[in-house]
Amino acid sequence: MTALNVQLLMTGNEVMAGDTIDSNSAYIARELAAMGIKVSRRVTVNDDLEQLLIELNSMSASADIVIMNGGLGPTVDDLTSEALAAFSNSALQIHPDAKAQLEGWCERRGQALNDANKKQMLIPAGADIIPNATGSAPGIDLQHQGTRVFATPGVPSEMRQMLPIITDRISARFDLTHRTIVRRLQTFGLGESNAQQLINNSTFDWPETVELGFRASAPQMEVKLTIHDDSHQEDQERCIQHIHTLFGDHIVGEGDTTLAEAVLKLLRERQQTITTAESCTGGLIASALTQIPGASAAFHAGFVTYDNAIKASVLGVSDSHLNNCGAVSEPVVRQMADGALARASADYVIAVSGVAGPDGGSDEKPVGTVWVAYGSREELNTLRLLWPLPRQLFQTMVTACTLDLIRRQLLGLPKYCRYVDQRQVVPTDQE
Amino acid sequence: MTALNVQLLMTGNEVMAGDTIDSNSAYIARELAAMGIKVSRRVTVNDDLEQLLIELNSMSASADIVIMNGGLGPTVDDLTSEALAAFSNSALQIHPDAKAQLEGWCERRGQALNDANKKQMLIPAGADIIPNATGSAPGIDLQHQGTRVFATPGVPSEMRQMLPIITDRISARFDLTHRTIVRRLQTFGLGESNAQQLINNSTFDWPETVELGFRASAPQMEVKLTIHDDSHQEDQERCIQHIHTLFGDHIVGEGDTTLAEAVLKLLRERQQTITTAESCTGGLIASALTQIPGASAAFHAGFVTYDNAIKASVLGVSDSHLNNCGAVSEPVVRQMADGALARASADYVIAVSGVAGPDGGSDEKPVGTVWVAYGSREELNTLRLLWPLPRQLFQTMVTACTLDLIRRQLLGLPKYCRYVDQRQVVPTDQE
Repeated sequence: MTALNVQLLMTGNEVMAGDTIDSNSAYIARELAAMGIKVSRRVTVNDDLEQLLIELNSMSASADIVIMNGGLGPTVDDLTSEALAAFSNSALQIHPDAKAQLEGWCERRGQALNDANKKQMLIPAGADIIPNATGSAPGIDLQHQGTRVFATPGVPSEMRQMLPIITDRISARFDLTHRTIVRRLQTFGLGESNAQQLINNSTFDWPETVELGFRASAPQMEVKLTIHDDSHQEDQERCIQHIHTLFGDHIVGEGDTTLAEAVLKLLRERQQTITTAESCTGGLIASALTQIPGASAAFHAGFVTYDNAIKASVLGVSDSHLNNCGAVSEPVVRQMADGALARASADYVIAVSGVAGPDGGSDEKPVGTVWVAYGSREELNTLRLLWPLPRQLFQTMVTACTLDLIRRQLLGLPKYCRYVDQRQVVPTDQE
Repeated sequence: MTALNVQLLMTGNEVMAGDTIDSNSAYIARELAAMGIKVSRRVTVNDDLEQLLIELNSMSASADIVIMNGGLGPTVDDLTSEALAAFSNSALQIHPDAKAQLEGWCERRGQALNDANKKQMLIPAGADIIPNATGSAPGIDLQHQGTRVFATPGVPSEMRQMLPIITDRISARFDLTHRTIVRRLQTFGLGESNAQQLINNSTFDWPETVELGFRASAPQMEVKLTIHDDSHQEDQERCIQHIHTLFGDHIVGEGDTTLAEAVLKLLRERQQTITTAESCTGGLIASALTQIPGASAAFHAGFVTYDNAIKASVLGVSDSHLNNCGAVSEPVVRQMADGALARASADYVIAVSGVAGPDGGSDEKPVGTVWVAYGSREELNTLRLLWPLPRQLFQTMVTACTLDLIRRQLLGLPKYCRYVDQRQVVPTDQE
């Protein structure tokens, strides 16, 4: 771990008011982490000149580097440039590179320069700009006393393309040794407390050099192992192996692997395909698969059969099953699966029919009930599960769990895992 | 606006490292804004006892209220309780209510209390707990000198159900007059700089009592009008009307209205239905519609026809069109639309076929190209657009723009709006 003290200063009324969720600081932290730099502190304030100046002065007492985000836009509430001028006791002036960039930006869009854009050319004297390849706002790069400040735009895509320039400038200026190495494992179906308990109960002698962290976020939980000195990679590898032993088939993959990615990878290796027949998830399973580049190799078709008549006409579900058992029933999801397999000529299928809510629940089938059919022609499995969650979270969890069930089948893993035990509802005789 | 000084202190290594995006602070800020309280500052730090104590001491110099989030979990890196004990110079002790809650939580799950859970019973002496209805970690409510501190768990659902208890306690303790009122408008297809320019160029005398803000986030842009004293509601209303005049049919609706909600509302009012035939968006349009409660009234079926053979067999697209024009072509999206309308017996349709990338582009049809067909049997429109964006953002923008095109058609608005002007690619003769 480098001893660099890096702090983030985020600005924006919309961020403070909660109208925008700040994903930029996470992105910046990850990019810095990849080069071995840990962010020690992050402060977020309103678009308030006085407050920005207070924070900049306070940060400069301890920070080697401050990365600012937001407040570079064309509007009157964008105050970063002004705050940096006050911070560095310098005047705002038109920077030739900023001017050239703004002119080019307007020209590409066939627009004349307006006053709002002209404001964006003003940079504190002595500061350098950071080119903005896509948007109008130039970034600002300024050294004042012991602190280097990089100011970036709040628009995520613009900040992201500017960051490599900043990290290059940091690498050129600061000595970065003892590289931090982060390794991550993605899991599904393990609770955080349960995962911690599995680790506590094991006799493995966890090395002090390896930092363990969990990130529980629906639907997956990430396990993160960090070493702050790259000479400890053997310790890290031992811990990874230990986590594999403990968490077993709940591990979906390394890095950022999503369940959809894991399933697509397995199918592509086997040159097999999957199709979907969705009622309550309304296309979310198909969308999860097709968000992944290269999905077309293993996914050819999906059916969103929201209405009973469509379940019958498109997938061949029989009216008698629909009338006698209801749309949320085993015979119906089974026929949805069969119909989709046939129509798509696919090898695998996920079919779901459930009650996403908030309305439509009954005593027998409350909101959160879902019938799932998944597998192949040769081995089609069905399950009734209960996820009593808000509508969109229900759709997210059903999507994740059905992808995980397919993953388990493809890998020949046990299908009765922890979450099935917890969520399964054993059908009544009538079903 | 109340003069209350409220600050947030967020803790978590995973948040600082960028592995978790902090959505909790936005949620807290919004809930407080609804009761007229503005958050002035937010600090985010690692799970570091010393740093937490520094920030608590620093905040207590100016803050009436500090809301902490994170660090209440069962693991060793959860340090909030310990930090609060140090901050308030008190010892950690088992709180009877915390004990009862933890015991109940374990009992409901059929688990024995483990050491990790026992740690969560320890609360600074003199502090009160905030009950946690769903998770294991009790919240902490502590008064130290002039500052009231509420500590909440990092798990979003647990924090969210705890927040009403906290706002009740704030209301009971502090005098909240001059209520802040926030009104928001959702727009699509207007750039932030363009929107600001429209306002700058208008002669309307904007009242100082009304604060204007924009939140540009793909795909929609929010316009926010805030008054900090509820006696200025007439001013606010005048500004809303002015924004309507300026932004016209780019306004999707008030509050949080999404394009999918606006479309579904219009269809439900007319008792009409819509269907989807998706290639490059892979189910995202169907999913956007079916995320909305009550979607089933207006959405019965969607087709994800990723593969050409499926476009032919499910939607009746002719092989000659597929072979001669390619899947990304006007005749193909037109037949996809016709096929979906017929299969779903729907009144309206959105059909898309495009190149989502990163692979599959050509000189003639680069990544980001999409052919769209939308409308009804009587009026089916087609457009070729270019959104050269990363895959998932491309899918998001195509989804939003097709929903907006349907919205415009349902409302009888002009179909050639700003984004169509900018994104449309006039087809070549071959097409």
